[in-house]
Amino acid sequence: MFFHVQRLINEIVPDEPDPAAANALQEGLGGQFGEMRTMMQYLFQSFNFRGPDGKPFRDLLYGVGTEEIGHVELIATTIARLVDGSPRYQGNPSSLDEPGADGATPLSVALSGGNIHHWLVGAQGALPVDAQGDPWTGKYVYDSGNLPLNLLYNLMLESTGRLQKCRLYEMTANKTARSTIAYLIVRDQAHENAYAKALEALGVEWNKLLPIPKTNAERFPEVETLLDQGLQSKQYTFSLDQLSEAGRLCQGPSPSKDGTTLSTEQAPEGAPMEIATERPEEFGPGLDPELLELVQAAARMEMEEPKGQWGRVG
Amino acid sequence: MFFHVQRLINEIVPDEPDPAAANALQEGLGGQFGEMRTMMQYLFQSFNFRGPDGKPFRDLLYGVGTEEIGHVELIATTIARLVDGSPRYQGNPSSLDEPGADGATPLSVALSGGNIHHWLVGAQGALPVDAQGDPWTGKYVYDSGNLPLNLLYNLMLESTGRLQKCRLYEMTANKTARSTIAYLIVRDQAHENAYAKALEALGVEWNKLLPIPKTNAERFPEVETLLDQGLQSKQYTFSLDQLSEAGRLCQGPSPSKDGTTLSTEQAPEGAPMEIATERPEEFGPGLDPELLELVQAAARMEMEEPKGQWGRVG
Amino acid sequence: MFFHVQRLINEIVPDEPDPAAANALQEGLGGQFGEMRTMMQYLFQSFNFRGPDGKPFRDLLYGVGTEEIGHVELIATTIARLVDGSPRYQGNPSSLDEPGADGATPLSVALSGGNIHHWLVGAQGALPVDAQGDPWTGKYVYDSGNLPLNLLYNLMLESTGRLQKCRLYEMTANKTARSTIAYLIVRDQAHENAYAKALEALGVEWNKLLPIPKTNAERFPEVETLLDQGLQSKQYTFSLDQLSEAGRLCQGPSPSKDGTTLSTEQAPEGAPMEIATERPEEFGPGLDPELLELVQAAARMEMEEPKGQWGRVG
Amino acid sequence: MFFHVQRLINEIVPDEPDPAAANALQEGLGGQFGEMRTMMQYLFQSFNFRGPDGKPFRDLLYGVGTEEIGHVELIATTIARLVDGSPRYQGNPSSLDEPGADGATPLSVALSGGNIHHWLVGAQGALPVDAQGDPWTGKYVYDSGNLPLNLLYNLMLESTGRLQKCRLYEMTANKTARSTIAYLIVRDQAHENAYAKALEALGVEWNKLLPIPKTNAERFPEVETLLDQGLQSKQYTFSLDQLSEAGRLCQGPSPSKDGTTLSTEQAPEGAPMEIATERPEEFGPGLDPELLELVQAAARMEMEEPKGQWGRVG
Amino acid sequence: MFFHVQRLINEIVPDEPDPAAANALQEGLGGQFGEMRTMMQYLFQSFNFRGPDGKPFRDLLYGVGTEEIGHVELIATTIARLVDGSPRYQGNPSSLDEPGADGATPLSVALSGGNIHHWLVGAQGALPVDAQGDPWTGKYVYDSGNLPLNLLYNLMLESTGRLQKCRLYEMTANKTARSTIAYLIVRDQAHENAYAKALEALGVEWNKLLPIPKTNAERFPEVETLLDQGLQSKQYTFSLDQLSEAGRLCQGPSPSKDGTTLSTEQAPEGAPMEIATERPEEFGPGLDPELLELVQAAARMEMEEPKGQWGRVG
Amino acid sequence: MFFHVQRLINEIVPDEPDPAAANALQEGLGGQFGEMRTMMQYLFQSFNFRGPDGKPFRDLLYGVGTEEIGHVELIATTIARLVDGSPRYQGNPSSLDEPGADGATPLSVALSGGNIHHWLVGAQGALPVDAQGDPWTGKYVYDSGNLPLNLLYNLMLESTGRLQKCRLYEMTANKTARSTIAYLIVRDQAHENAYAKALEALGVEWNKLLPIPKTNAERFPEVETLLDQGLQSKQYTFSLDQLSEAGRLCQGPSPSKDGTTLSTEQAPEGAPMEIATERPEEFGPGLDPELLELVQAAARMEMEEPKGQWGRVG
Repeated sequence: MFFHVQRLINEIVPDEPDPAAANALQEGLGGQFGEMRTMMQYLFQSFNFRGPDGKPFRDLLYGVGTEEIGHVELIATTIARLVDGSPRYQGNPSSLDEPGADGATPLSVALSGGNIHHWLVGAQGALPVDAQGDPWTGKYVYDSGNLPLNLLYNLMLESTGRLQKCRLYEMTANKTARSTIAYLIVRDQAHENAYAKALEALGVEWNKLLPIPKTNAERFPEVETLLDQGLQSKQYTFSLDQLSEAGRLCQGPSPSKDGTTLSTEQAPEGAPMEIATERPEEFGPGLDPELLELVQAAARMEMEEPKGQWGRVG
Repeated sequence: MFFHVQRLINEIVPDEPDPAAANALQEGLGGQFGEMRTMMQYLFQSFNFRGPDGKPFRDLLYGVGTEEIGHVELIATTIARLVDGSPRYQGNPSSLDEPGADGATPLSVALSGGNIHHWLVGAQGALPVDAQGDPWTGKYVYDSGNLPLNLLYNLMLESTGRLQKCRLYEMTANKTARSTIAYLIVRDQAHENAYAKALEALGVEWNKLLPIPKTNAERFPEVETLLDQGLQSKQYTFSLDQLSEAGRLCQGPSPSKDGTTLSTEQAPEGAPMEIATERPEEFGPGLDPELLELVQAAARMEMEEPKGQWGRVG
Repeated sequence: MFFHVQRLINEIVPDEPDPAAANALQEGLGGQFGEMRTMMQYLFQSFNFRGPDGKPFRDLLYGVGTEEIGHVELIATTIARLVDGSPRYQGNPSSLDEPGADGATPLSVALSGGNIHHWLVGAQGALPVDAQGDPWTGKYVYDSGNLPLNLLYNLMLESTGRLQKCRLYEMTANKTARSTIAYLIVRDQAHENAYAKALEALGVEWNKLLPIPKTNAERFPEVETLLDQGLQSKQYTFSLDQLSEAGRLCQGPSPSKDGTTLSTEQAPEGAPMEIATERPEEFGPGLDPELLELVQAAARMEMEEPKGQWGRVG
Repeated sequence: MFFHVQRLINEIVPDEPDPAAANALQEGLGGQFGEMRTMMQYLFQSFNFRGPDGKPFRDLLYGVGTEEIGHVELIATTIARLVDGSPRYQGNPSSLDEPGADGATPLSVALSGGNIHHWLVGAQGALPVDAQGDPWTGKYVYDSGNLPLNLLYNLMLESTGRLQKCRLYEMTANKTARSTIAYLIVRDQAHENAYAKALEALGVEWNKLLPIPKTNAERFPEVETLLDQGLQSKQYTFSLDQLSEAGRLCQGPSPSKDGTTLSTEQAPEGAPMEIATERPEEFGPGLDPELLELVQAAARMEMEEPKGQWGRVG
Repeated sequence: MFFHVQRLINEIVPDEPDPAAANALQEGLGGQFGEMRTMMQYLFQSFNFRGPDGKPFRDLLYGVGTEEIGHVELIATTIARLVDGSPRYQGNPSSLDEPGADGATPLSVALSGGNIHHWLVGAQGALPVDAQGDPWTGKYVYDSGNLPLNLLYNLMLESTGRLQKCRLYEMTANKTARSTIAYLIVRDQAHENAYAKALEALGVEWNKLLPIPKTNAERFPEVETLLDQGLQSKQYTFSLDQLSEAGRLCQGPSPSKDGTTLSTEQAPEGAPMEIATERPEEFGPGLDPELLELVQAAARMEMEEPKGQWGRVG
Repeated sequence: MFFHVQRLINEIVPDEPDPAAANALQEGLGGQFGEMRTMMQYLFQSFNFRGPDGKPFRDLLYGVGTEEIGHVELIATTIARLVDGSPRYQGNPSSLDEPGADGATPLSVALSGGNIHHWLVGAQGALPVDAQGDPWTGKYVYDSGNLPLNLLYNLMLESTGRLQKCRLYEMTANKTARSTIAYLIVRDQAHENAYAKALEALGVEWNKLLPIPKTNAERFPEVETLLDQGLQSKQYTFSLDQLSEAGRLCQGPSPSKDGTTLSTEQAPEGAPMEIATERPEEFGPGLDPELLELVQAAARMEMEEPKGQWGRVG
């Protein structure tokens, strides 16, 4: 059973919209090695896990899998911002925000590259597709039922995700895009470390192979700050009932051989969320004055706070 | 940001394994109108939501979307049980649980219908596919960005999910399968009610149209108990920080015209989870004595309980 | 612009339902070489046709394409009948038509092979998929824009369709299935002849190669009657305004070298259509007494006959 | 059984070719909410219809489905014109129509965005794909067998199609594109009205919800003319034998609350069709002088007018 | 550039046809972890290889990739035999080989499970699909361009292939199927060893992790003979010009820790190939007496032996 | 069983990188009518061939199929060169080869059209997809089991491949691209001739229809040199054991009616292969100094030349 808090797992730095960067980021959301895939793969491996002796391994999968839902939320929100009201900065300030000004059609940006579905099928929001527009598919999910194989696959998966995010970083200088890319580079390394450590528990010695790819703060300034916080060596459980035993695996020296020690926490602090503004040229949400009034009336209705047994205890 | 508790959203009633029922249930998990789809559709509609005036509508989507992750967990676990060690009851008791007895091959059941991937690709676990074995695809996710359209689609989606589960109920008498099917019939109706109510807030009057399909406890005994608990008229928020405003919409007489009143709670109590046993004929988890010893050693390692600010407050 | 008459292009012979035959026939409907594909391929080749000099070739494509829509209707209706109320004849007469009798679940047939979607996604009707359940895809449509290539492809396509229908004939003895299969074997040959004749106009001499496959009435008794009517050598235009020039190509000795001469007509006589009965176990159409009354009231409403300029002139 | 007349369902206004607009329009042809989908969905719902009491509902589906075949023809032809001989107007007049002039390669336009398959796989014609190049798939077709659900889905489908066409209108100012887009905006509204009316017959009251999206002539000048003709409130039967009972449903005040009354006609007048010219750089149709002579000889052959019982009666 | 000899890479043991086993084996041919995938993945990694320093790694990929083409040939031929003339042994000896005997339809076997396309689309031959009938897709091919990642993936891929073949072994006792399955279990282990050794060259120590899965001759008698020949520790180069440097990597103690030493050879001896007999019920090859005579005449034509510089030198 | 020599089947002419041309060429590699498809189609038709009388036909399929593996190697290598280090020539010389110079991001080229996966998923290498980025699929493979149909299909397939390559030639003037395109135009014609000749053996007379498309050296200067060498009329067997009987079919006057005579050889001479250089901005191969040293040490290891019975005999 899963719960939600209205906070993003990491803060998104503001910058101009950038549809090309948005489209590239779709690979990190709906691509073969993106966050939807890691999320689903680890959740299925958790649901189907065999062998009560291996509870710490299962709990590790549940923890990373739950974190990945938050990554899906983070990267989807980042894409939505990058594609929102685009693209004022490209020299025609009146184009989208004043539809029709100067004789331009208000959505002509949709024809100039990237994924036309961002404007045509959705209303300037994220899509469950990759950077080529191919939809995410359940075929991506790997769960062989064999523990060593699953761990090997997951290590490779996180490393490939990290590789692609390093390439994404080199494709765009947009700060909104880079703030999320840098965060995921570091968290992918954290997950590389977690799966590599789990394989060390099965006897493997990695020596100099990790991290993959062989790069870090030297190329990516935004990554440096996060490394200074040791974020590449922390594992989160996202476990409300504190029953997770992932911490039994995630301790000791990092397999990345960077001198840090692995540790475990429940969850990061997170950052506040906002609701995006209306885009009338998209008919989103598409309320005329009469319908808007009905919506506002509903938002003013009284409600009783639902009783619940889960919440903030700190 | 999302959290997890190690409890299933509803209890699964024990019964014999039943691979044919397991395969049919895959439609409810990875099918075009299954739980993976509702989960992803509502989450994307939440991430991309436009119009701060509509917060109660967005929070409704977040609440149902988060519940659906728990439904994915429930139905995946149900399928895993139905396909586990199958099928003792089909007249050849020695076939799978004593591999090779009587000259039978230990996995010959895999060739006799259903989805061979349950035994060949996975290790007797759930797959992200439908009852025909087709993988789930991001193409299923509908988010037009237009609020009335999204609500209409969601109402239709829940009703179609409920229709398919009513048909599934009529395909199998297996108690494990039916306990989850019945629960989802009732919760799908709850979500029908929620989206229908949101459309009532926009002025629509449904009169006699709901629920779809036009059936209830009269055909499905397991459903009756749940109706007696009013589960078809409760909305859960799964909101840890209690910021959800879904309750502003989910109140007043049910659109199903069954005499009940809609209400809102944080979450159900849930039921305990277990880890499945090893299946050596599947090499799952595939640990020989040496590897098993390493796994057990890891499970005995000391760990510090990770500090966290979220947990049980009741 | 297209029109419809409420008649099937050929009569369907009654027999018992037969879900396995229904599933096999899906290949002829939604398969890579089925009727949806020929229909779409010829229509796209018509829409995109280049070269005013080639009007008879374009009109041939339009005529066959329009006939194929009627074939889609015929084979879909055949499948719907084969899967309707199934399967009384399989030794358990009470199973489906008296849901729940003898403790059997009313839709257990859905788990016993064929395509479970016939009962679970649809309500015992045809699906736009092939005999493996794979959905029809636009990738099937071939239109190179090169006339000789399109004609070669179409000849190969019709021959492959005919080959598959000959194999289907050998898979089932069900009379409902065979009446439609036999009709399509003969009409596919008619289309083979038409495209082969068009290539003869470009200089090719087929000698002994046709028809493909090399078989005819000798194996398929139902085919013989239709051959006696010369149906393998008739081309229909389905042209309401009689502007089709396909007849310039479809004349002279048949490329099948069977001694017949090709000729052209507007359309066959056809056979009456019926509306299928309700299947309550499928919630199809799913009307409870209150909704049924509303439907019947609508069916009794007065209406003015719409004026129109097209109709029966004979 | 279906028939064809050599007329387009609406006139296409001439303008310069525009490959980017052509590619965008592909969404309306082969997209998830395009005309191929509505056509196939309504035809399958017609073929599989259950319940003789509901004949007016079935006939409504048949009528709209048959109209959609004509829409497929219209939008495919529009795309073919937009991508034909492109793009003279983009500042390099000699590029395509004088292949090789100025050292440019004759098909270099194919590498500059849009869908390269328009030039590489087809010969500057329409493709059965969407605006991202994804092929149409049978998975799009929804037919639950449940009448209320099918009507709800169809209402949502037409509204989503209309929403996308409104967005398409805002993406391009090309007159060829806009003439077809505007026509389809109005006809989609007509179909919204028809399905909404059918649901009114089942008791639903829409109040202010329709049309979706909430826009009309105020943004789209080309739409205004068509509204003045009342085209958003007319239903066509395309029924040759005048047996359609759709008119029983399509009468009374419009669910769009625009003050009009719904009515029924057989078919619109339509506009003449033309055959596109040869494109030698595409080898389309690819006839050298010898083959062209054979084609012309075939076109001069005598033919007998095929006798037929259907035609113009007005 | 590639060459062919008319020999199978391993002998196929004769047994009765067995369509269910044939269908299961399709996973090993066209599945996500089958031979078409390993073949294509290693060939693409070879074509795109970066870094002249790494020639032994590239040559290893080329060698295994070329071997996999031979595996595709072997498993396709095995499937073709298993599905050929099926299934005499299932109690109705007259069914297929005497079409129509006893009133049975000659191809009714096609309706009784497995993949109907084996009889309907192909003529009792292998298909490029998996055991669920899903077509092979280029999405399976992984080539990140990063050497450590590619090696990790390849190790995981071979291990998963071997895992699935171990499961296949346990699904069928058919000797034809098992002879090929056992051979591939051993060769997959050979490739596991090769990639594991290449990672050892990069510093990794596997300790007790390999082979995956943890099983060998103890369960699979047919495997034992091949292990006695040391086939799990031999690497083939299939290099005609002897330029392959794969042997620099494939030497020293086996990573499987089975006491053997890795070594390299050019190619195995192989076994003779045969051409399958005609299946008239499939119209395969579909020659009537006249066409057969033409084929035989062609086969009797004189020919000059083509000169060539490559051939047998031993 | 297959073998490899480290030579390309034809030389690739050097020129500047050109990502747009690279992307267009993907159609020739992974497209519906590209080299992966011809390769797989002919190999499956060879594996499944029926009828010992038809050995020359089977051997023809094996020979062309084996040649196509070399074509896959050739076109993949061509694409890799076109996308390697791109694109110096586009006016910003410092962009890719000096990552980060002038403030540009090193991989910004990835966002400017073509297929972003060339830089994001792969490391500037070829992908198994078409020019729209759609992955190759096993659905492309046609093997009906009927010899005349297979030959007709293959003739159409080669002609369509040649048509697309003629269009590709007209899309780009890049010499690297054109050298491979021109070679494939000529070899596709050779294969057209081979399949046309095989159909002539079955009685067909093509008269003036071939080659398709109707063009040759007059438009494509690079093609002329190859025609002068008679490459359009040579068939290669790639048969190491010289058992191929394809030469019985490939003799006599060319069906293209160009005055040449068909003949058969074992294989062309080929051209040397190279290993591409490292691309650090792609982390390909991604070796840091420590890993590079290990790789170099491996490349210096001694090895014994593997004994083998196949090699150069000329």
